[in-house]
Amino acid sequence: MTAVERVLLVVAMNAEARPLVKALELVEEGCFCPPARCESYVGRRGGMEVRLVTCGTCATHGVDNCGTVPAALTTYLALEKYRPQLVLNVGTAGGFRQEGGCIGDVYLAHATAHHDRRIPLPGFDKYGVGHHELMDASVLRTKLGLKPGVVTTGNSLDAVDVDLQLMKKNGAHVKDMECAAIAWSAHLFRTPLIVIKAVTDLVDGGRPTQEEFLENLHTAADALQMKVMEALDFIEGKAISEL
Amino acid sequence: MTAVERVLLVVAMNAEARPLVKALELVEEGCFCPPARCESYVGRRGGMEVRLVTCGTCATHGVDNCGTVPAALTTYLALEKYRPQLVLNVGTAGGFRQEGGCIGDVYLAHATAHHDRRIPLPGFDKYGVGHHELMDASVLRTKLGLKPGVVTTGNSLDAVDVDLQLMKKNGAHVKDMECAAIAWSAHLFRTPLIVIKAVTDLVDGGRPTQEEFLENLHTAADALQMKVMEALDFIEGKAISEL
Repeated sequence: MTAVERVLLVVAMNAEARPLVKALELVEEGCFCPPARCESYVGRRGGMEVRLVTCGTCATHGVDNCGTVPAALTTYLALEKYRPQLVLNVGTAGGFRQEGGCIGDVYLAHATAHHDRRIPLPGFDKYGVGHHELMDASVLRTKLGLKPGVVTTGNSLDAVDVDLQLMKKNGAHVKDMECAAIAWSAHLFRTPLIVIKAVTDLVDGGRPTQEEFLENLHTAADALQMKVMEALDFIEGKAISEL
Repeated sequence: MTAVERVLLVVAMNAEARPLVKALELVEEGCFCPPARCESYVGRRGGMEVRLVTCGTCATHGVDNCGTVPAALTTYLALEKYRPQLVLNVGTAGGFRQEGGCIGDVYLAHATAHHDRRIPLPGFDKYGVGHHELMDASVLRTKLGLKPGVVTTGNSLDAVDVDLQLMKKNGAHVKDMECAAIAWSAHLFRTPLIVIKAVTDLVDGGRPTQEEFLENLHTAADALQMKVMEALDFIEGKAISEL
């Protein structure tokens, strides 16, 4: 039962990362594994090294490298290079009104799955869904007053009917664009993963996701920042099994 | 103008790789970058090292690691480790009857893009489509009698209406589950990519993809194997600019 010494925060977007980098007083290290564009920021929280990685900016289009491919690669390369004992995926996400979700809610997820990988062949169907049970961090979740839930992941910001059906089938409380891919990489390294997501928009709320998302991104990122600070303070000095 | 010394074949599925491994008399090397499950096979073709990598098998579900995430990671890790001068992505794919496609056709693509990454935010929209112009290998294409075309990539084997619309917008001749993600990794390393795809099923043919796919997978893999052998024999001794 040794305390966590190295924790890795995986954050897809710069707008989500900035409040955290500032609040945690992390030092920018730049691209940590070129030619991949993912970036690293590092600092300490008591006896614990805290490293935050983002997926970086797309050199061609000048926007954040969001979605499953950069998220899985960034997580993989960071795990390979830094060997943290614990990964936290933190970010903004969509909620579901039907599941009691409200804008500003913060979830600590217990499972994740994909909703945009439909492969109706024996065995491949389950692979496509790619359900991952996440680490049981119920002590931490209760302490922080976070909601439990399932994160459903897809590469689109919007959701068409078939997506909504598969999100429902996944038992989704939260919808994002990276979590299940990050879980895939973390699972390869057998590294426990805690997922904390703040709700910027309601998938079933009737408004276009992009409008609500842009309106609430910064507010949600601030709410997220506070909860992540609390989480890190709780984790510091504890073993994985105490979370 | 130096001849290509190291060529990397990226093949998603084992059923696609097996005829090639056999015909090229490649030696199995196993997982080349654990804990990633991707596998390597190596041999020579005249003065050229030929390495084939697959995305390996999912440890949880026991099926091939298909789709964009394992494809991008496998390509990235193989490029990092082996530094080939040329990548070939070869595999089976769907064709489009409306574009004159028939089962058994073999394409050498000139561009690729995603059809399942809808992100209606400024800049992110184009990032989501992720259009990549591929290497102009028109000398090779003409020599082998292959069709030119655009490969559209998505993580589902089937296609719903919104997918079909976006495939059309991409100008698609061929639909697969990996190409655009492989192009993304190859682009990071500035390594030229040639894409050769054999048609197993028709996206707009009226039959369920999974039926046609399973029926024609082995025939198409054999057709592919012959064309890839011809391509390697043509590439051997030549510089990239001569292709």
